[in-house]
Amino acid sequence: MSTLRVNLPGREYDIVCQKGILDKAGSLLRPILKGKLAAIVTDSNVEPLYAARVARSLHLAGFQVALLEIPAGETSKCPEVLCQVWEQLMDVGLTRTDAVIALGGGVVGDLAGFAAATILRGVDFVQIPTTLLAQVDSSVGGKVAVDLEAGKNLAGAFYQPKMVIMDPDCLNTLPNRVFSDGMAEVIKYGCIWDRAFFDHLAALGSRKAIMEDIESVLLRCCDIKRQVVEQDERDTGLRMLLNFGHTVGHVYEKAYHYETYTHGEAVAAGMVVAASLGTALGITPPEAKDEISALLRQFGLPTEISATPEDYRSTLVKDKKSQGSRIHLVVLEEIGKAKTLPLEQSRLLNMLG
Amino acid sequence: MSTLRVNLPGREYDIVCQKGILDKAGSLLRPILKGKLAAIVTDSNVEPLYAARVARSLHLAGFQVALLEIPAGETSKCPEVLCQVWEQLMDVGLTRTDAVIALGGGVVGDLAGFAAATILRGVDFVQIPTTLLAQVDSSVGGKVAVDLEAGKNLAGAFYQPKMVIMDPDCLNTLPNRVFSDGMAEVIKYGCIWDRAFFDHLAALGSRKAIMEDIESVLLRCCDIKRQVVEQDERDTGLRMLLNFGHTVGHVYEKAYHYETYTHGEAVAAGMVVAASLGTALGITPPEAKDEISALLRQFGLPTEISATPEDYRSTLVKDKKSQGSRIHLVVLEEIGKAKTLPLEQSRLLNMLG
Repeated sequence: MSTLRVNLPGREYDIVCQKGILDKAGSLLRPILKGKLAAIVTDSNVEPLYAARVARSLHLAGFQVALLEIPAGETSKCPEVLCQVWEQLMDVGLTRTDAVIALGGGVVGDLAGFAAATILRGVDFVQIPTTLLAQVDSSVGGKVAVDLEAGKNLAGAFYQPKMVIMDPDCLNTLPNRVFSDGMAEVIKYGCIWDRAFFDHLAALGSRKAIMEDIESVLLRCCDIKRQVVEQDERDTGLRMLLNFGHTVGHVYEKAYHYETYTHGEAVAAGMVVAASLGTALGITPPEAKDEISALLRQFGLPTEISATPEDYRSTLVKDKKSQGSRIHLVVLEEIGKAKTLPLEQSRLLNMLG
Repeated sequence: MSTLRVNLPGREYDIVCQKGILDKAGSLLRPILKGKLAAIVTDSNVEPLYAARVARSLHLAGFQVALLEIPAGETSKCPEVLCQVWEQLMDVGLTRTDAVIALGGGVVGDLAGFAAATILRGVDFVQIPTTLLAQVDSSVGGKVAVDLEAGKNLAGAFYQPKMVIMDPDCLNTLPNRVFSDGMAEVIKYGCIWDRAFFDHLAALGSRKAIMEDIESVLLRCCDIKRQVVEQDERDTGLRMLLNFGHTVGHVYEKAYHYETYTHGEAVAAGMVVAASLGTALGITPPEAKDEISALLRQFGLPTEISATPEDYRSTLVKDKKSQGSRIHLVVLEEIGKAKTLPLEQSRLLNMLG
């Protein structure tokens, strides 16, 4: 079992990773949770695959277990489902010392995490991410949220889990497109932080080869995110680097109503645009765009998505990263090294238009 | 102007109190808020009385002002209105550096505070409490929440304001019953912390006399709450003392569907029961009950409310203060000195039955 410790003052926690570790969830969690009840929040896709194993493991470790299921899909990450989960957590008798366990992908983790952060003003929370995207990105770092009409992740909290438990075997059941969805974030870590990792991914080049080296790939991603989050939990500086490709990616997700493209697909095309913008601004070497595009293509990710000037305008002026009229764009100084650049909204829109 | 500084690590803030201070809100806030936009959340009772004055003051200090109004009344403190406020805050163009200002009583403060704590994962927040209850209790200490079907304040956060601005002149417009509502909490501070203050309140004895000494009464209450909150922001120990009378008070509020009795009236009767329970447990001197009852009556508060064993049972087993099967009851060692006592739910229910 590999373990990464995330050191945030007063809220240290471990990310543990091992094939088959789902069956050890109970024994891993018993020493670190103080309560009797573990309320598993999962979705209708994940429930038949993994819920019984996790519940059994928790039972064997002496927990009472409650199972809450939400409909699979992005549309569950909304205030209405949050309210339902709040009420259900009370219905199953949750008290302040009990825990909420998110078992699933990013939607489940973000929603259950926000519910845990707020029910009874905050109870213990555990992430058991079952998708690649959730394992390398959304389960680490403590950002939890729901979407609003006005955009993604607009209501939420910073709330760290007590533990993140990752079973790479869960990735075997993912459709190729969902696996690729996560690969966009994996590639992002190479782009912003680690040239050698970027090259290693290119050398692996396929889902099959990634899966043969999966523990080290997951841990490298989580370790990069850990370093960033430890330095900037509240997302006021360094953490913005994790947003590479996301500013424009969000435009694509929104322009197609979160239906046509996955988050990773939108971020993939967004990273290519961010590389071009960086070059136009005289910061990113011109060849970066082609290198990034080539790696994205190896994993079946798009390198271009079309959007109108109005798509850009309507989303970017509401971007959470905007501060007044400025947007903080993440650009690459080279592959493996990123920085943020405050840009006037109008200038960015002109460049994109 | 009187100022109390609340010292919480990294989140220090001032409580400022002065007659007519509403007109100085802008100049007080300009140095401590970094954003351009101030979104005032108020309710349909308070809006016609004070919103224009506060908005004008903010304008004069250079803020853009947005005004959001919720329906007056306890029923607004719900997830549905929270979601509406979330969406409205985005509609008025709130960004991460902007601020939410709660102008009103406890409902507005709790709801707007929870919205501020969670919109964009948290923006600056200011409390301008306009009722006695909000000034002495809910605006200080950082507890924000909405009610769920299952009970009061069940979804929320700990979120400290950047400033609390109290204008005692706002209390002049309160109906007598709403003033008394707040007096129950004022009397509570005497019961749990300060015998001399308890006696002082008895000597004042009327709303008129209280209002002649209002700044010192407000500051004494806030200073007691400040001391408690500084030692136990997260409500895991000392802060439970503030719950004196509330465990049973919540039963009364719920049994009458939050309609027949105000929060303060329910807490008043709850304090009398808590005194009796304390005496039955051999902790509270027998005369405390009569002394507390007499003071409550001076301010038109009830000293007895009837409830059935089922009322007690159904509410107490869901009490947020319960930890497993135990409830932490607050009892008085004497008037002016309180402690918490862990009690088995079953024993407490027998004593109440």
